[in-house]
Amino acid sequence: MKNKNRQSQIPLPTIRRYPIYLRAIKAKVAGGEFYVSSAVLAEELGFDPVLSRKDLAMAGIPGRPRRGYPAGELCEAISHALGWDIPTEAAIVGVGSLGRALLGYNGFEEQNLSIATAFDANPAIISQHVHGVKVRAMDELSATIRRLKIKIGIITVPALHAQQCCDQLVTAGVKAIWNFAPIQISAPKGITIQNVDLAQSLAVLSHSINYSNS
Amino acid sequence: MKNKNRQSQIPLPTIRRYPIYLRAIKAKVAGGEFYVSSAVLAEELGFDPVLSRKDLAMAGIPGRPRRGYPAGELCEAISHALGWDIPTEAAIVGVGSLGRALLGYNGFEEQNLSIATAFDANPAIISQHVHGVKVRAMDELSATIRRLKIKIGIITVPALHAQQCCDQLVTAGVKAIWNFAPIQISAPKGITIQNVDLAQSLAVLSHSINYSNS
Repeated sequence: MKNKNRQSQIPLPTIRRYPIYLRAIKAKVAGGEFYVSSAVLAEELGFDPVLSRKDLAMAGIPGRPRRGYPAGELCEAISHALGWDIPTEAAIVGVGSLGRALLGYNGFEEQNLSIATAFDANPAIISQHVHGVKVRAMDELSATIRRLKIKIGIITVPALHAQQCCDQLVTAGVKAIWNFAPIQISAPKGITIQNVDLAQSLAVLSHSINYSNS
Repeated sequence: MKNKNRQSQIPLPTIRRYPIYLRAIKAKVAGGEFYVSSAVLAEELGFDPVLSRKDLAMAGIPGRPRRGYPAGELCEAISHALGWDIPTEAAIVGVGSLGRALLGYNGFEEQNLSIATAFDANPAIISQHVHGVKVRAMDELSATIRRLKIKIGIITVPALHAQQCCDQLVTAGVKAIWNFAPIQISAPKGITIQNVDLAQSLAVLSHSINYSNS
């Protein structure tokens, strides 16, 4: 915990870029490279080199002149800053098509994230196991999340129910909400919300195929 | 097509906000309101009122002093700017857990988007039907996309294969790429790419639960 204060100073845009650096550095390590430079990474990833120098310096390990950062240590430092060096459990609310996909998605292993428990309001699927996770009734949400000390809640319910789910998760002690419902939700100060709004990126694509001048 | 040039002038950040306005306006219409004002929408959605006034003016229909915009016409104008007033067909490459979820997701109806065809490299699932869509072999991709005149390609393959899929889609005539693979991909000028990188939003959440000062 001694570095907690330093980690909390890393700006969110840097945090959002860290997974991109991490993948690129791991690819270099897999290719047999021991050192990586921020300039090489910036060029490869299309980032401003000044920005990449600052981003990587924030990870808090010393680079070596003309060689760059030791790649393995830099990966560990970035994983640590992201909180990916320790296992994290999340709860998912809404076991429809998107909820099922996230339960079955094996892409969260690198992030040390597992979905430990799932909730749904539909009696037909309560008590079923989906990708090994038992679906529980909504009235078990609060006690289950407290017991498992879960800090991340994933919302994959229809828009109409998203705010109510968010409120229940926050009351139960969740500190971060990953919202896939197509609606703006709000939470008290101190709760982090990340929205994945598929309609917004689809808007850019469908606009471009209809009106692009190129 | 007479408005094509005006639509192409709408900036991308405005386009990304249009689905959010559209949902809010539709909710008001459903609640029996005939007029909406940019000031009311801005407050409700947490946007800067000056920004919202410009965003809605871009849709190109006249508002009325003290009453605002006629809600139904504004919805139609925004849908038109997004290209959501006409049906669009997309192709998906990669029928793993995420690809299956997108094929089964019914949230794209509002956007008039349907996934018309699917491709995968795995012989075990080729010729299967997933949510009513037949999975085709990769060597059928080019001819199928040309025949169906598909302009949007959705990539849900592992990172390792994403760039190659993108290249194949672009060669076949796709103009917009929705990339869900966790890797940066590139395409020639004139091709629009939207990346949905789940690791980036997860980074913000896991960082916040570990290091937040609140």
